[in-house]
Amino acid sequence: MTQSDAKSGESGSGNEPTAGADDSGATKPVRLLSRDQLAEIDEARRATTETRRVSVPALEDILYQPIPVLDRGFVRVIDYMGDDGAVVQAARVSYGKGTRKLREDEGLIRYLLRHRHTTPFEMCEIKFHVKLPIFVARQWIRHRTANVNEYSARYSILDNEFYVPAPSELAAQSTANRQGRGDVLEGAEAARALDILKSDASRAYEHYEELLNEREDGTVIDPDKQGLARELARMNLSLSFYTQWYWKVDLHNLMHFLSLRADPHAQYEIRVYAEAMMDVLHRWVPATARAFSDYRIGGAHLSAAGLAVVKRLLAGEDVARESTDLSPREWRELMATLDRKG
Amino acid sequence: MTQSDAKSGESGSGNEPTAGADDSGATKPVRLLSRDQLAEIDEARRATTETRRVSVPALEDILYQPIPVLDRGFVRVIDYMGDDGAVVQAARVSYGKGTRKLREDEGLIRYLLRHRHTTPFEMCEIKFHVKLPIFVARQWIRHRTANVNEYSARYSILDNEFYVPAPSELAAQSTANRQGRGDVLEGAEAARALDILKSDASRAYEHYEELLNEREDGTVIDPDKQGLARELARMNLSLSFYTQWYWKVDLHNLMHFLSLRADPHAQYEIRVYAEAMMDVLHRWVPATARAFSDYRIGGAHLSAAGLAVVKRLLAGEDVARESTDLSPREWRELMATLDRKG
Amino acid sequence: MTQSDAKSGESGSGNEPTAGADDSGATKPVRLLSRDQLAEIDEARRATTETRRVSVPALEDILYQPIPVLDRGFVRVIDYMGDDGAVVQAARVSYGKGTRKLREDEGLIRYLLRHRHTTPFEMCEIKFHVKLPIFVARQWIRHRTANVNEYSARYSILDNEFYVPAPSELAAQSTANRQGRGDVLEGAEAARALDILKSDASRAYEHYEELLNEREDGTVIDPDKQGLARELARMNLSLSFYTQWYWKVDLHNLMHFLSLRADPHAQYEIRVYAEAMMDVLHRWVPATARAFSDYRIGGAHLSAAGLAVVKRLLAGEDVARESTDLSPREWRELMATLDRKG
Amino acid sequence: MTQSDAKSGESGSGNEPTAGADDSGATKPVRLLSRDQLAEIDEARRATTETRRVSVPALEDILYQPIPVLDRGFVRVIDYMGDDGAVVQAARVSYGKGTRKLREDEGLIRYLLRHRHTTPFEMCEIKFHVKLPIFVARQWIRHRTANVNEYSARYSILDNEFYVPAPSELAAQSTANRQGRGDVLEGAEAARALDILKSDASRAYEHYEELLNEREDGTVIDPDKQGLARELARMNLSLSFYTQWYWKVDLHNLMHFLSLRADPHAQYEIRVYAEAMMDVLHRWVPATARAFSDYRIGGAHLSAAGLAVVKRLLAGEDVARESTDLSPREWRELMATLDRKG
Repeated sequence: MTQSDAKSGESGSGNEPTAGADDSGATKPVRLLSRDQLAEIDEARRATTETRRVSVPALEDILYQPIPVLDRGFVRVIDYMGDDGAVVQAARVSYGKGTRKLREDEGLIRYLLRHRHTTPFEMCEIKFHVKLPIFVARQWIRHRTANVNEYSARYSILDNEFYVPAPSELAAQSTANRQGRGDVLEGAEAARALDILKSDASRAYEHYEELLNEREDGTVIDPDKQGLARELARMNLSLSFYTQWYWKVDLHNLMHFLSLRADPHAQYEIRVYAEAMMDVLHRWVPATARAFSDYRIGGAHLSAAGLAVVKRLLAGEDVARESTDLSPREWRELMATLDRKG
Repeated sequence: MTQSDAKSGESGSGNEPTAGADDSGATKPVRLLSRDQLAEIDEARRATTETRRVSVPALEDILYQPIPVLDRGFVRVIDYMGDDGAVVQAARVSYGKGTRKLREDEGLIRYLLRHRHTTPFEMCEIKFHVKLPIFVARQWIRHRTANVNEYSARYSILDNEFYVPAPSELAAQSTANRQGRGDVLEGAEAARALDILKSDASRAYEHYEELLNEREDGTVIDPDKQGLARELARMNLSLSFYTQWYWKVDLHNLMHFLSLRADPHAQYEIRVYAEAMMDVLHRWVPATARAFSDYRIGGAHLSAAGLAVVKRLLAGEDVARESTDLSPREWRELMATLDRKG
Repeated sequence: MTQSDAKSGESGSGNEPTAGADDSGATKPVRLLSRDQLAEIDEARRATTETRRVSVPALEDILYQPIPVLDRGFVRVIDYMGDDGAVVQAARVSYGKGTRKLREDEGLIRYLLRHRHTTPFEMCEIKFHVKLPIFVARQWIRHRTANVNEYSARYSILDNEFYVPAPSELAAQSTANRQGRGDVLEGAEAARALDILKSDASRAYEHYEELLNEREDGTVIDPDKQGLARELARMNLSLSFYTQWYWKVDLHNLMHFLSLRADPHAQYEIRVYAEAMMDVLHRWVPATARAFSDYRIGGAHLSAAGLAVVKRLLAGEDVARESTDLSPREWRELMATLDRKG
Repeated sequence: MTQSDAKSGESGSGNEPTAGADDSGATKPVRLLSRDQLAEIDEARRATTETRRVSVPALEDILYQPIPVLDRGFVRVIDYMGDDGAVVQAARVSYGKGTRKLREDEGLIRYLLRHRHTTPFEMCEIKFHVKLPIFVARQWIRHRTANVNEYSARYSILDNEFYVPAPSELAAQSTANRQGRGDVLEGAEAARALDILKSDASRAYEHYEELLNEREDGTVIDPDKQGLARELARMNLSLSFYTQWYWKVDLHNLMHFLSLRADPHAQYEIRVYAEAMMDVLHRWVPATARAFSDYRIGGAHLSAAGLAVVKRLLAGEDVARESTDLSPREWRELMATLDRKG
């Protein structure tokens, strides 16, 4: 889907979701936001000012616009500070804007990343508005070096929006890896699983409204009842419901988050957020993003014992696992890294 | 298994709940843990060693023992480092154990706390094992300056344990305060609310087992099915389910947590955990706990404008709100602090 | 040397201090920077771009300009993210820019600050370039919740710039407070102190050059010598020498820093930096700055026992210290807060 | 007092250096501490208590004892929490002490470290008392995820102790690496460097006393003078003077510190502290220390492009730098890692 599709999104009442994201594959045309929300975003996008700060046109292009993730979620860039040049500027403690020649700057950025000089990357900052299922939020919040403001279900009523996996993501438990996924479920088992997830969440929301004695649109259900406190009623909702937050992080810690969450071992439902943010990274700080992709995402770490094996292999030796300091598991992992058969 | 089954505590398998860990007066008998768990705790309590480190007998007394909180939760102290003397020792950068005269030490502790010299309090550390409902865990985790290891529902199967408020805590939404509680619900509305909370959670767990194709005890339900991945099935559980974690924090940040969460404005369900930890604080560092209770819990902060009002009142003036820099709301809060009628 | 000496700034080479960066009213002409540095700053100020982000004209006015502090130091704002509206926007997890009515926003900001809802203030960020004596930097760095890039004397050669207190700040040791100042030194004692500070620092720098076998301007002193490693030679410099860094912090943690360092108990040499940053705060987020001044700077904290005394006084009682839970020292502090005689 | 006086050790007042605390083989006799300080340490070591907490005998053996570092510095372990078993216990969120079979535990520890599951390592904590030169302290403090209490030269008078490099460490500036060391200086240049470092520091301390109008032993120099405030006088001391602090850190962040500071690229004067702490690590958590040495210290990180080169080499190809995505510098670093000629 394109951003402009996202914006088309008109529909009836101010607050209701218009045509849903989820009768479809992963991310085609989606109507995520209400008219009021879209109007607010459009207004924010239209207002421009002059600034002496550095700006990044490629990031300005998508500022405030929701990037759809999962069936009802999104990531939006709300604000940012700095660019690739700001990394260089801080590393040099410059008086000016820091940029010399592009080529030289990129070399310095690669050097800093390679040698773990992380503080210059902390000098850039970005702020996102994210809508995500609660079980994803619970993983995400474990990254402590960030600032967060979450929508409060103690104070407000949550929307009737919950995550239902696309059929292609309805995976069985892996038999090899206790925290992994196996084959995609099919047939009756898949249908039953989707039915449970949808009907339990729908019922939970109906009962949430009943407990509150208030509908999603704010109208009272039964004037003779008081309604349970919001801070209690919310506990009836399941972990598949969407929440949202503002999340602000510096560039170094964003890359740390991405290195863990854009990794193939990360759960699919958080990885898709990380992937959307990888695209943002390339718009925002292209030189840093390239170095990051090369060193952190595509690279590999060798242990002392693993490095010793590589050296023996390079010397032409036919190395047997038993002659090394590697456990069978470590051996398998090393052979996989080197694309060799164990 | 239902909550009431869980409480009656009959057993058989290693994992079912049974007689409580602590029959002392402080915490009444509760059936929180399985026999195996209790045996593990007993074993840990029996094993003692000699140490050159400072020890705190009053805290050793309750080490490893669960302090019951809510209907199924607990707090257990797992380990600690330092005591009141360690605060003094660090403040003085001492060569020895730091303690001089008790009276002098307490004076220094009060001085440090009064003048916000917080770093010496960071020199003590404590580690808890906590079992708590997920919606409470979501508030708690916002305190970032702590170390956390949570039970992983991506890797393991959650127990069938969820929170149901006691009838005395089944509060209506406050009409005055959007994030507060009003009167306790009664009669049919209360009965209906409890019924919804229990039956939805019970059904959610049954369906969780069906999705996993695996029962709580680890047996397979239908050998012809694969079972949904754990990392997906968990999303069917509601926020009332219990999770557990190890939580480690230094004394300064523990007091910061307690000042926010033992506060009357905190939600009841997290406040009871904070209150249990206040008792732990008094056992562990009694002088610090006294100073904390006096300065942070029982005290009050006055704004510049509020302080000006107090001075005028002390001078005998009859002060009208309109003659001050306080908004009506600020005025009401100040009068409440001073126990005066606005 | 006095500020005015520093400002006279004659010289020739590219690195010498020269005409001030700022002839505006806000910050009077100062000769802090070299011509090259001033040129870099001017170039940065001239380059403006369009942005969809929120901008703050009053802060843009002084962007990049050095605000002089002490005899050779400065604070410069390099970049910022957000404004008062961004605090409100985050508190509401808004879709738009968050601002409703100014009056309503200010009320919310005051409420958040009064009730320690600190996370919305973490959503604004500011980046400074600071030049400061090393002994001040050593206090400053204790604030850990910030990002820092310091000029490296391991990698580069430090400039020949050191702090000498103005005669009016050459204070004697306080006899009442072990970490405070007493009267200003005068006459021969003052002259001797200034002479020691200047001559020792000058000699230290000459010897630093000799150790390096390299002058400040990069020329080699004796081609037959190797020169001591920079990372070693720097240890000959005294704590009065100036260093510089980029320092980035969120609005909440900036206010925490200011509440400690703009306080009368803070050492003069760091307080003047905090005061310069207070002015920046008022330009950047005026509503937040007003609330902060009222609640944090001008206010007072009462302990439980202190509050009890205030209530008794308000009830007309003639309270004797002995009848309270206050120590003599706590009593004196309370009476000072209330402008009463003990 | 000069450094050589300090080392000879005997003397009269309570504060003078005297016989070393540790005559064991590991750390040769050094006269670091005064008699009073040694007596305090001995007293702390003699007092033992019973505890239910886990203890580590190999670490208890050296508890409180100074491990000499540089000419006048030391590291002392003051307290600790947890052991290898506590890492396992937290990873499993156990009810008991967590240890199963040693072999199984070590496998889990290696797995956690290999896959960057860092939180279980945060569950162990250690507290050091460190005496170190100020320029080393300034590097050290950049590690923000730790708790620190430093001796205050604002409040107290610093001792007359400064670092002078051993002749074997008096290195020239590297010509290849701007932040590295070259050959050791010899002959007249070395003698002159040592003379400058010693005489400037000695004079700085004499003048520090004169500014304070107070000698190191607390006696007043001239009763007719007031003495400069301590917070000002300290600025006359050089960066080679020793300071001291309590430093407390969790096991994960300690390993992060060690991976950067025990690295060959770290400055010698901080590396020797890291090396002393590596020995402590092996005493405290031997399984974790082994895994750490294997994965972090002895290992290597390959970029995506570097890994591609390794695979081509393993396939028998004769790879030329120009045919890769590596810069000349990256190529040299890779060849060095693989022990190959570029």
